[in-house]
Amino acid sequence: MMDIATRVHNNNWKIDPIVRSLIDTDFYKLLMCQSIFRNKPDTEVVFSVKNRSASVRLADLIDEGELREQLDHVRSLSLSRGESTWLRGNTFYGKRQMFRPDFMEWLEKVRLPAYHLEKRDGQYELTFEGKWPEVMLWEIPALTVLMELRSRAVLKGMGKFELQVLYARAMTRLWEKIERLKTLERVKIADFGTRRRHSFLWQDWCVQAMQEGLGRSFTGTSNCLIAMKRDIEAIGTNAHELPMVYAALAESDAELAEAPYRVLADWHEEHDGNLRIMLPDTFGTEGFLKRAPDWLASWTGIRIDSGDPAEGAETAIRWWKERGEDPAKKLVIFSDGLDVEEIERLYRQFHGRVKVSFGWGTNMTNDFRGLVPNDALAPFSLVCKAVSANGRPTVKLSDNPSKAMGPAEEIERYKRVFGVGAQTARRVEV
Amino acid sequence: MMDIATRVHNNNWKIDPIVRSLIDTDFYKLLMCQSIFRNKPDTEVVFSVKNRSASVRLADLIDEGELREQLDHVRSLSLSRGESTWLRGNTFYGKRQMFRPDFMEWLEKVRLPAYHLEKRDGQYELTFEGKWPEVMLWEIPALTVLMELRSRAVLKGMGKFELQVLYARAMTRLWEKIERLKTLERVKIADFGTRRRHSFLWQDWCVQAMQEGLGRSFTGTSNCLIAMKRDIEAIGTNAHELPMVYAALAESDAELAEAPYRVLADWHEEHDGNLRIMLPDTFGTEGFLKRAPDWLASWTGIRIDSGDPAEGAETAIRWWKERGEDPAKKLVIFSDGLDVEEIERLYRQFHGRVKVSFGWGTNMTNDFRGLVPNDALAPFSLVCKAVSANGRPTVKLSDNPSKAMGPAEEIERYKRVFGVGAQTARRVEV
Repeated sequence: MMDIATRVHNNNWKIDPIVRSLIDTDFYKLLMCQSIFRNKPDTEVVFSVKNRSASVRLADLIDEGELREQLDHVRSLSLSRGESTWLRGNTFYGKRQMFRPDFMEWLEKVRLPAYHLEKRDGQYELTFEGKWPEVMLWEIPALTVLMELRSRAVLKGMGKFELQVLYARAMTRLWEKIERLKTLERVKIADFGTRRRHSFLWQDWCVQAMQEGLGRSFTGTSNCLIAMKRDIEAIGTNAHELPMVYAALAESDAELAEAPYRVLADWHEEHDGNLRIMLPDTFGTEGFLKRAPDWLASWTGIRIDSGDPAEGAETAIRWWKERGEDPAKKLVIFSDGLDVEEIERLYRQFHGRVKVSFGWGTNMTNDFRGLVPNDALAPFSLVCKAVSANGRPTVKLSDNPSKAMGPAEEIERYKRVFGVGAQTARRVEV
Repeated sequence: MMDIATRVHNNNWKIDPIVRSLIDTDFYKLLMCQSIFRNKPDTEVVFSVKNRSASVRLADLIDEGELREQLDHVRSLSLSRGESTWLRGNTFYGKRQMFRPDFMEWLEKVRLPAYHLEKRDGQYELTFEGKWPEVMLWEIPALTVLMELRSRAVLKGMGKFELQVLYARAMTRLWEKIERLKTLERVKIADFGTRRRHSFLWQDWCVQAMQEGLGRSFTGTSNCLIAMKRDIEAIGTNAHELPMVYAALAESDAELAEAPYRVLADWHEEHDGNLRIMLPDTFGTEGFLKRAPDWLASWTGIRIDSGDPAEGAETAIRWWKERGEDPAKKLVIFSDGLDVEEIERLYRQFHGRVKVSFGWGTNMTNDFRGLVPNDALAPFSLVCKAVSANGRPTVKLSDNPSKAMGPAEEIERYKRVFGVGAQTARRVEV
C-alpha cells in the first residue's frame, strides 16, 4: 500500500513526473482515437484547456517552469511494451482485440505533439495543434498535470504528519461515501475521475478502496494504467469531441444536422454491446432523440452528462418506449458531477426501471473540500476541448447552457439547426 | 513513514514480534532497575498481570499459543550493541552516564526470567517470579504483548482498506487533539503511553505526530526505543513498585511507616534535578506529605497519578508553601488517565502557579474508541504489578480506592499505619 503523504512530501524536493505513462488516460480516449485514426485521420484540430473556475488562478499558483517540465515529460512518453501487450491482448467488455493491429502499430510510435503555453489574466492558455488522433491524446494528461500541480502547490508548505492527516481525512470521507453506496443493492459504479483527480496516487488509492468496499458493485475504472496495474475492468465509450468535430467539418446545415448520427454510424460499424452507448446532449438531448434514426433505439444505452439527470433519463425512457424498446433492458449511465446524495436519489428513481450505472468522477477522486484553509484544495472545473477542426470553430450546446462552448454566432446557428429552445442553466462545480 | 495498515494486515499471515527490543520499555523502568540493582538486588519478587476491565475477556480473544510465542520471543531478547551504546553514551535530563558501568554490564547480559501462564475465567493469569531487578523488566513487555495481541485479534478479519481507514480515523482523532493542545501556550506534554498502547507502530506514529504538531511543547517519550530511534528525549522517573516492595520488606509498623521515605532517600542519593520527582500516592498523598522529611520539600516536583488531580496539585502547593518553598518553581506532572479536556482544565487551573507538565498515556496511544463495532478496540485497564516481595504480599492504597491492591487485612494495616481515612472512588478506565 502506497504511503501517499510521504510521496507528496517528497514532491517538494525532487522532480516527480505526474504522468508516467501514455495509458494514464481514459479508456474512451483510446477507443475514440482508434475511430478517428480510421475515419478522420487527417483532420487538423486545435484543443484548448479552459478553467471554468476563474477564481482558481492557476498561473499564480503554478510555476510556469514546473508546468513546462511536466508537459515536456509527457511528450517524452511512448507506449511501453507491457502497455502495448495489455492493449492488444486484454479483453475489454468481453471482446478480444478491441484495438486493431494497424492502430496499435501507430500508437506504439506516437509521441504527443508540441504545446503552446502562455499566461493570461492569472490563467494559463494551453493549446495543442495538429492531427486529430495525436492532439486528442493531450486532453487527459494536460488536465491531470494542471490539477496535480495545483494540489502540489497547495500542499507544498505542509508538514509530513499534517499531510498524512489530510489524507487520513480524505480517506475517511471517501470510505464513508463507500459505506453509504454499498447499501444500494446491486448498484453499479465506475471510476470516471481521472481528468480532475487530486493526484495519480490518490486516484489509485480511491480505486482500490472502491474495489474493496463496493466489491462487485464497483464495475471498473476509466483509467487504463490503473486498470492494467490493478487488474480491473477499463471502462468508457465515447465523448463530445466526436460530434463536435464532425459537426464543425459539416459543409452545410443539412450535413450539420446529420453529423451526430454520422458519428454514431461510424461507431456502430466498429462496436457492439456495451460500447454502443449514446451521448445525446452535445447539441441538446431532446432534438437529438426526436430526429434519431431507428437503428439507434437498438443501442445498449445512453449516457447522461448534462442538464437535470433525472429529466434526461425520463426523456430517454419515454423515447425507448415510443420506439418500441423495453427500457428495463437499457443501460443508463449517469456521469455529470455526481456525489453520493445524487447517486442515491437517481438510484431510487431508476433502479428496476432501467439498468442504472454511475460514472463517478471528481467527487470521488478529488473531494478535499474544506480540508485546508481557504478551501484551497476544493476541486474546480477544468476542461480541455476541441475548439476548431480544419480551421472552423467547434460548438457544444449541451443540456446546460453553462457548459455551452463556441463563438456566439455559431451557437445561434447550431441552436437553430438542432431546434434547441430555452434551457435551464445549472451550476457547474466540477 | 510507516504504512501501519499494511503491517497490521501482514500480521495475519506471518509471525511479527510485538516486542523487538529490551529497551522497548519505559525509561523509568531502567532507572528503577539500576536503583534496585544497587540497593535491593536479591529481593525475591512476584509480578502479576491484572486486567481491571473484566469485560474484556483476553483469554477468549487471544490464542494461548500466540501469546506464548510472543512471550518466548521477549525472553530471547538481549541488549543490542547500539542500544547499550545509546544508554551508556546518551545525555538524559542533561546528565551524562546516567547508567553506571556495573549496571550496564549486568544489563547487557540480562535475559528475562521464565513466566507462568494459565487461563482462568476468560482471563490469563500471567506471573513472573525471581530476583527483583530481572522480574521487574517484564512489566512493560507483558502489557504491550497482551495489548497488541488483543488489537491484532480484533483487526484480524478486516480488509486492507477498511484497516487503512480505521487508522485514518484514529490519526485524524489524535491530530484534532494535538491541534487543541497546541493552542495551550508553552504547555509541556510527554508520551507516557507505552504500556497500554494499541501497538508499537501506532505509538511510534503518535510520538512523531506529537513532535511535528506540538513542536517544543512535546517534551519527549517514556519509550526508550522510540526515543533512541527518533532522537528525542527519554522521559520518566520512578513508580509505585519501589515503595510497594520496600514497604512489603518492612519488619515492623515503624519500618513500614518509614518505607516510602527510605525509597526516596535512596533515590535522592542517586539522582538530582528533574529526576527528583515524588510519587506520593502509593499509601495516600495527604499522610505522605504530612510526615515527609524536610529535605523532600527541596525536590524538583511531584507526580499526581491517582485521585482528583486538581485536589492533589492543590494539596502539593499548600504543602510546599508550608515548608517555605515557592510552588512557582516546582514541577507538577499529571499522569493519571488524561485526555484533552482534562489537560485543558488542569492547564487553566495551574499554568503560571506551578510548572505544569503532562504525562499523556493511553488516550494518546490507544484511542480507538467507537471505531469498530462493539467498541472492541476501546482501551482497557491492564496492569502488571509486584504482588509479593520475599514472600510477603505488597499493598497499594493509592488516592483512588478503585486502584487499591493487596490482601484485605494488609490494606487495613497499611491504612492504619499511614493514617488513611475515607477516600473517594473514581472510575478507572485506562
